Amino acid sequence: MSEHYMISNMKPFFEPSGVAVIGASREEDKPGHVILRLLLENRAKGVLKAPVYPVNPNADTILGVKVYKSISELPPDVDLAVIVVPARLVPQVMRELGEKGVKATVIISSGFSEIGRFDLEEEVKREARKSGIRILGPNCVGIFSPWSGVDMIFLPYYKELRDGRKVLSAPRPARGHVALISQSGAVGTAALDYMYGEGIGLSYFFSVGNKADVDEVELLQALKDEGNTWVILLYLESIKRGREFIKVAEEVAQKKPIIALKAGRTQAGRRAAASHTASLAGTDEVYEAAFRRAGVIRAYDIEELFDFAKIFVSQPPPAGPRLAIVTDGGGAGVMATDMAEILGLQVPELTGDTRARLEEMRKKGLLPEFSQVSNPVDITGSATSEMFIATTRVLLESDEVDAVAVLALHQVPGIPDPVELARELAKIASGFSKPVVAVDTGWSEAAILERREFDKGGVPSYPTPERAVKALWALYKYGEFLRKKGKYREYVEEFLSRRSKGNI
Amino acid sequence: MSEHYMISNMKPFFEPSGVAVIGASREEDKPGHVILRLLLENRAKGVLKAPVYPVNPNADTILGVKVYKSISELPPDVDLAVIVVPARLVPQVMRELGEKGVKATVIISSGFSEIGRFDLEEEVKREARKSGIRILGPNCVGIFSPWSGVDMIFLPYYKELRDGRKVLSAPRPARGHVALISQSGAVGTAALDYMYGEGIGLSYFFSVGNKADVDEVELLQALKDEGNTWVILLYLESIKRGREFIKVAEEVAQKKPIIALKAGRTQAGRRAAASHTASLAGTDEVYEAAFRRAGVIRAYDIEELFDFAKIFVSQPPPAGPRLAIVTDGGGAGVMATDMAEILGLQVPELTGDTRARLEEMRKKGLLPEFSQVSNPVDITGSATSEMFIATTRVLLESDEVDAVAVLALHQVPGIPDPVELARELAKIASGFSKPVVAVDTGWSEAAILERREFDKGGVPSYPTPERAVKALWALYKYGEFLRKKGKYREYVEEFLSRRSKGNI
Repeated sequence: MSEHYMISNMKPFFEPSGVAVIGASREEDKPGHVILRLLLENRAKGVLKAPVYPVNPNADTILGVKVYKSISELPPDVDLAVIVVPARLVPQVMRELGEKGVKATVIISSGFSEIGRFDLEEEVKREARKSGIRILGPNCVGIFSPWSGVDMIFLPYYKELRDGRKVLSAPRPARGHVALISQSGAVGTAALDYMYGEGIGLSYFFSVGNKADVDEVELLQALKDEGNTWVILLYLESIKRGREFIKVAEEVAQKKPIIALKAGRTQAGRRAAASHTASLAGTDEVYEAAFRRAGVIRAYDIEELFDFAKIFVSQPPPAGPRLAIVTDGGGAGVMATDMAEILGLQVPELTGDTRARLEEMRKKGLLPEFSQVSNPVDITGSATSEMFIATTRVLLESDEVDAVAVLALHQVPGIPDPVELARELAKIASGFSKPVVAVDTGWSEAAILERREFDKGGVPSYPTPERAVKALWALYKYGEFLRKKGKYREYVEEFLSRRSKGNI
Repeated sequence: MSEHYMISNMKPFFEPSGVAVIGASREEDKPGHVILRLLLENRAKGVLKAPVYPVNPNADTILGVKVYKSISELPPDVDLAVIVVPARLVPQVMRELGEKGVKATVIISSGFSEIGRFDLEEEVKREARKSGIRILGPNCVGIFSPWSGVDMIFLPYYKELRDGRKVLSAPRPARGHVALISQSGAVGTAALDYMYGEGIGLSYFFSVGNKADVDEVELLQALKDEGNTWVILLYLESIKRGREFIKVAEEVAQKKPIIALKAGRTQAGRRAAASHTASLAGTDEVYEAAFRRAGVIRAYDIEELFDFAKIFVSQPPPAGPRLAIVTDGGGAGVMATDMAEILGLQVPELTGDTRARLEEMRKKGLLPEFSQVSNPVDITGSATSEMFIATTRVLLESDEVDAVAVLALHQVPGIPDPVELARELAKIASGFSKPVVAVDTGWSEAAILERREFDKGGVPSYPTPERAVKALWALYKYGEFLRKKGKYREYVEEFLSRRSKGNI
């Protein structure tokens, strides 16, 4: 076991009892001001339970709050300190925090190993080790959680454009169940912006920066039992402790899915990564093998990362690879089928009872005369909302398939209210343990609202058939991992119980 | 040469002199009503130059317009007829249209080969052949062009939700320079919805349906010299005339890029395609080889199709594979580098003059002290708008690279107005013959506005580094094709002259 395991005490990062801002500032644009303001606001709202203490030798009050002149004067309940002072001052700050008995720090400041100042980073670590104080960072954007109210994202929330418009610039996702650990602050905040827009809720965001102490391994371990976190996302450029990563990830993944976006896949990419993180990255094959062994699902870009996150948080893994597709657009069905086959899912022709039921419906005029009941089930441009609902139900009840993709292109006349259709379908889907994904293509109001309604109802929606099927495939791969570990049933049961309580 | 070449006369599909609606209806939801209304509206607006004539034996006026009781009574200027009567009546209609001397028809009606009624489709073709009348369809959604004002998309434009909201459902893209030929009506209309939302302008949309007569080959040929069309998109499930396709596409592609999304790539996908189009599709390898030979760029889903369309319509192909990346987010740079390398583009380390210029800027404090000037050029979270502008200019002026990717994550404090930055960068880019792409990740207002401003300025923008680099790669591949054909210089010159006239 490495030294990381001997020192623990991660709790203050999740639920601090008192937060100090070392380097609190009166200047509105400075991180030391923005972070203080964010924390005070969340404290005022009652989201952040911990009191907040600014530290600055040259100020009496900031934002109407008493400023502490020195760390030694801080009250004893401080267990988390955010450090925003210049890099060269950090070792001294660390010593004083250690002496004060503070347990955890987040070093926002940059100017350490990422620019070649390994000496300074080592000095900080030495100081920390003396007192057992934990470090997140340095060179990071810290922590944000809509649950705990800790928010250190010092980037401008709004931007005022020259033409007078004030536009949202660094939005925060709402409360949810997806955790994000990012080695890059920029990618992390861009990812939060993406999550916000996609309506994906967050549990915790950790920007690990240079990983002087706390790294993804320890955060994974800590998130394993964190109640609000159901899915864990990683953005990584390097893993320093490969063996520990595999060990811990393999253990955590049996309980919660881990999805990793690992940049630096190519030689040129690794060179680029090394130049800005000062860490050597192994070849991609090594990471690929490690992820596979540990049951970590790999995403290849930010879009995939969140496409996967959406389905993992809302749907249980399928019992097998057999996918049923229902659509009012034949071409969309073909594209979904292609992607399924390419990835190794199956789109079996329907036979037996399922087919008989659909044929019976067609005979009775409950499906269009010329619909195809094979799979994809193509209910054509003459489809109605009722037909979608009836067909989806048949497919969910079928023992011939393990998952269902509903490609409900809203444009057809027979869907008078695509939002209502999405709501109905999501309601039905929630009664089954088979995963369901939805697709509607386009950016008209109708398309956006239909997709949003599916998402709200717990059926992840996508703007193309390919993205939906790929997400389903990732979920299937996770199911395979769970089965290999003998944990599939346990996971699905827990998932369904959570869902039945309406927790999603 | 097949029979398709002997009969020509495609002009009425592009610029009709008079349009008849065979099967015009008083019932508001019927295609025969919607199409008539759309045409009359466009005529009233002056967009559609041709007069519009409804035909229906049982009506006197519809929408205030005189109805013709029979085809024989139609005025002689009718050269295009839209047919929406039931399938069984179409042969008779075709005969009468032929006798009347009408030159072109669009058969919206379904109920032909796609449901096994090959006999009926043959009968219609026989009738058409007698008079040399051309057919688009049957079983299609017809034609739409914001330039000609022809609009046959009979799907509800708005939908009234049960809660009273009236939402846009089948929007039309604005005037532009991308043509779309689709074998699937559903995919076609979904694609138009997508184009609308992405702000990609359309020249012509053709839904070819069962391709009883006019097919993608002939439309490609016709679009070759159509002045508003600069890029041609194809959605295909099968190509009946492979040899002619290659011949014509190879010829057209030397003048205008052709991007194809070919569904039915897998065996299961082909089975699905066959079931709804009644056509046999060849193996994917055959298509792949045909596309490569003909210089057709292949997209693998709708997202890629339009990601590619955006860059082809706004940027010239690069002279070589060397990509420069500038970013304020190191991780984004790594991801862009990875994708470039994976696809076969190069991200060369900068040396010589380019590097010297950047180092000089850093020395003077015009770039952050800790920026990386290798490539990706990482100007870090301390980047300002001015730094982005200066760096981009250096890279555009460099003879070490052939293309530039600007990954300007808007969140950093140094970009006070991301919209202005995008405007400035696009202005600079338009002065160079090197292609430029832009990236900003997220869905905050700031992200959306920044990307939109890049698009407006002619620099295609993408929400992830990977999508941007892939689009650039597709453009590079097209450049390779042009070079092989000795047409690169000619194409780029024409492109740049078009751009200098502000035509984009």
